[in-house]
Amino acid sequence: MEFKSKIKTIEWVDTYSKMVDQTVIPYEYKFVNITGGQEMFDAIRNMIVRGAPAIGIAGAHGVVLFAQEGADKPRNEFIPWLLEKAEYMKTSRPTAVNLMWAVDRQIEVIKNSDSDVKGIIEELKENAIKLENQDIEINKKIGDYGAEVVPKGATILTHCNAGALATVGYGTALGVVRSAYAKDNTIQVFADETRPRQQGARITTFELAMDGIPVTLITDGMCSYFMKKGMIDMVVVGADRIAANGDTANKIGTYTVAIAAKYHNIPFYVAAPLSTIDISIKTGEEIPIEERSHDEVTHINGKRICAEGVRIINPGFDVTPHELISGIITEKGILRPDYNKTIRAVYE
Amino acid sequence: MEFKSKIKTIEWVDTYSKMVDQTVIPYEYKFVNITGGQEMFDAIRNMIVRGAPAIGIAGAHGVVLFAQEGADKPRNEFIPWLLEKAEYMKTSRPTAVNLMWAVDRQIEVIKNSDSDVKGIIEELKENAIKLENQDIEINKKIGDYGAEVVPKGATILTHCNAGALATVGYGTALGVVRSAYAKDNTIQVFADETRPRQQGARITTFELAMDGIPVTLITDGMCSYFMKKGMIDMVVVGADRIAANGDTANKIGTYTVAIAAKYHNIPFYVAAPLSTIDISIKTGEEIPIEERSHDEVTHINGKRICAEGVRIINPGFDVTPHELISGIITEKGILRPDYNKTIRAVYE
Repeated sequence: MEFKSKIKTIEWVDTYSKMVDQTVIPYEYKFVNITGGQEMFDAIRNMIVRGAPAIGIAGAHGVVLFAQEGADKPRNEFIPWLLEKAEYMKTSRPTAVNLMWAVDRQIEVIKNSDSDVKGIIEELKENAIKLENQDIEINKKIGDYGAEVVPKGATILTHCNAGALATVGYGTALGVVRSAYAKDNTIQVFADETRPRQQGARITTFELAMDGIPVTLITDGMCSYFMKKGMIDMVVVGADRIAANGDTANKIGTYTVAIAAKYHNIPFYVAAPLSTIDISIKTGEEIPIEERSHDEVTHINGKRICAEGVRIINPGFDVTPHELISGIITEKGILRPDYNKTIRAVYE
Repeated sequence: MEFKSKIKTIEWVDTYSKMVDQTVIPYEYKFVNITGGQEMFDAIRNMIVRGAPAIGIAGAHGVVLFAQEGADKPRNEFIPWLLEKAEYMKTSRPTAVNLMWAVDRQIEVIKNSDSDVKGIIEELKENAIKLENQDIEINKKIGDYGAEVVPKGATILTHCNAGALATVGYGTALGVVRSAYAKDNTIQVFADETRPRQQGARITTFELAMDGIPVTLITDGMCSYFMKKGMIDMVVVGADRIAANGDTANKIGTYTVAIAAKYHNIPFYVAAPLSTIDISIKTGEEIPIEERSHDEVTHINGKRICAEGVRIINPGFDVTPHELISGIITEKGILRPDYNKTIRAVYE
C-alpha cells in the first residue's frame, strides 16, 4: 500500500516557482509565487524554502527565473551571464550540497544545449520539472528501503524536518516514516523541537498531523530521557551533506542526538538521496558550516528570550561522524559501514 | 578576593517573604512580597521562585506564613494544624529534596519548642533567617571548592540555572563560576538555553550579565558541537536531588549534556549543598520526576510553536547516572566516586 501525502512543497508553474511559505508554518499553510532570480536567492537564504532537497529544486528553479530575465540578450552574452547567475545561486546557502548538485544539473543543460535562448529556457524548465519528479520518486524509494528496518510498532525519533516540506514531497527521513506507516499504522514519531529555528516543532509536527501520523513533540534536551526509558526504537534524520567517509552534516543538534543514541545502543540512520553525498570531500571536517543570524538564538517569534549583552554563536549545522551512523538510507538501498567502500561502490 | 554578587533572591522581612519574581526575568527585575502560606505554595508551584535551594528557603518561609495565619489558635490546636500545613508545603513540588529538607528543619523547631504560639512563630522566623544565611555561606564554600578544579581561562558549560537566582544568593554551579572568576577573570560561561522553561536563556544569562561575567548563550542541541571543537573545558550543573549512589536528578536535558561530556572526555561536575543528597534512596530510579504542563513545550511567551493535535510529554527533570559524574562539589569538599562510600562518609 502506498502512502498518499497531501503535501507538494515546490513546483514549477508555467513561468514561476510556486512554493509553500515555510516561515509561517504552523500558523498558516500558504503558497508564494517566486517570479525572479534574485527573489529566489532571497527565498532560499531567508528559509521561505528550506530542507536540502527542496532548496536544490529551488536553486534549479532560480536558474530558470534568471534565464527568463535574460531572454532578450543575444545568445553569446546570455550563456556566460546565465552561468554566472547559476554560480551565484549556489551561494545562497553554503552547507547543503543538493543546492550545488541541482544547479549543476541546470548548468549542464546550459552548456550542452544547441538551442537558441528561447529553446535553452524551455530546456531548463523541462529539466527543472524532471528534477522535481525525480525527487519524489527518489524519496519513495528511500522510504521503502528505510521502512524495511523499522521494527513493528516502532517509535522513531527525528530531528529538524527532513519531510515532505524539506523536499518536493514525501520526504527523506519522514519518507521512511510514511512508508513504514503505510505498512504498520502502529508506528509513531517523536519530533525534536530543533532550536533555534524550531523546524521540528513548527514543520515536522505540522506535516505529520496533516498526514495523520501520530507525533509527540519533545524539547531537544529530552531525547536521552526517553531513550533511557526504552521509548525510542530508532533515530532517522536527513542530511545536508555527506562526505565520502559517511560523516554527515545535518541541522545543529543532530550530533548530540547521535551521541545519545550510541550511548543507549539505539540505531541511528541518515536518510538522504545520493545527491546529498559529496564524494569530492574525504571527511566531515571539510564541510562548510553556515553561521546564521544571532537573532535566531536570542529571539523567538520576535520576542527576546535572554539578557542583553549575551554573546552568541549560531552554527546552522553540525557533523555527525560516520562511526555513530548505523546506515545511510538512499534510493539505491541502505549503505552500511565501511562507508568509504559502500559509498564508492554505489557511485561506480 | 571574594566575589561580590548583586543578587539576593529571597529573604524574610519582618512578616513576609520578599523574593525576586523569576517569571518576568529577563524583561523585568522586580520583587514580590508573599504574605500568606497558600500564596507561597502557589509561588513555588508556579515557579515565581525556583531552583532547589531557593525553594527550600521558600518552603521554610511558607511555614512561618502559615504559622502567622494560625496565631490565634490555642497551642494544642496550633501545633498539629501547623505540622499538617508544613507537610502540605512539601508537596508544592515533588523532585527537589531541599524543599523537604528545609521544611523538616522548621518541623523540628515546631516539635522541639517549649514556647507559646507567639514564641514558636518567632523561633520559626529566626530559623528561616538562619537557613538563609547558611545557604549563602554554603554556596560560597561550594564555589571555593569548585574553583579549585576550574582550569585557567576555562570555558564552563552549564545547564538551566543553578545560580544566585536558584539559591538565596551566590549560587551552586554559578557559585563555582563566581569563585573561579574572582581568581581568574579570563574564564567564561556557555549557558544552555534549557527548553522548555528557558532558565538558561532567561535567568543564567541575566544574572551573569548583572554580575559582569562573560556568557555565551547556546541552544540545547549545540553542546556537542562546541565540545567537539574543544571550546568547552568542563560542565558544572546544579541538582534537585542526589541519591545515595550519586545518581543526580536535575533539570531535563542535563543527562543529555552529561552523555555528550563523557563522549568528549570533558569533566562533568554537580554542585550542590549536602541538603540535596537524599540518603534515604539508593539510586536515581527512586527519584520522583515531576510531569509539568504541556503548555511549557507547546508555547513560548504565550504563542503556540507547533501544530495542533501533537502529543506532549513534559518531564521536568532527568536523572544523570553516577558513572557520568566526575565529582559532586559540596560545602564539605568535592565528593568523588565511589559515591556510595564518599557520600556515606561525609554524612558520618
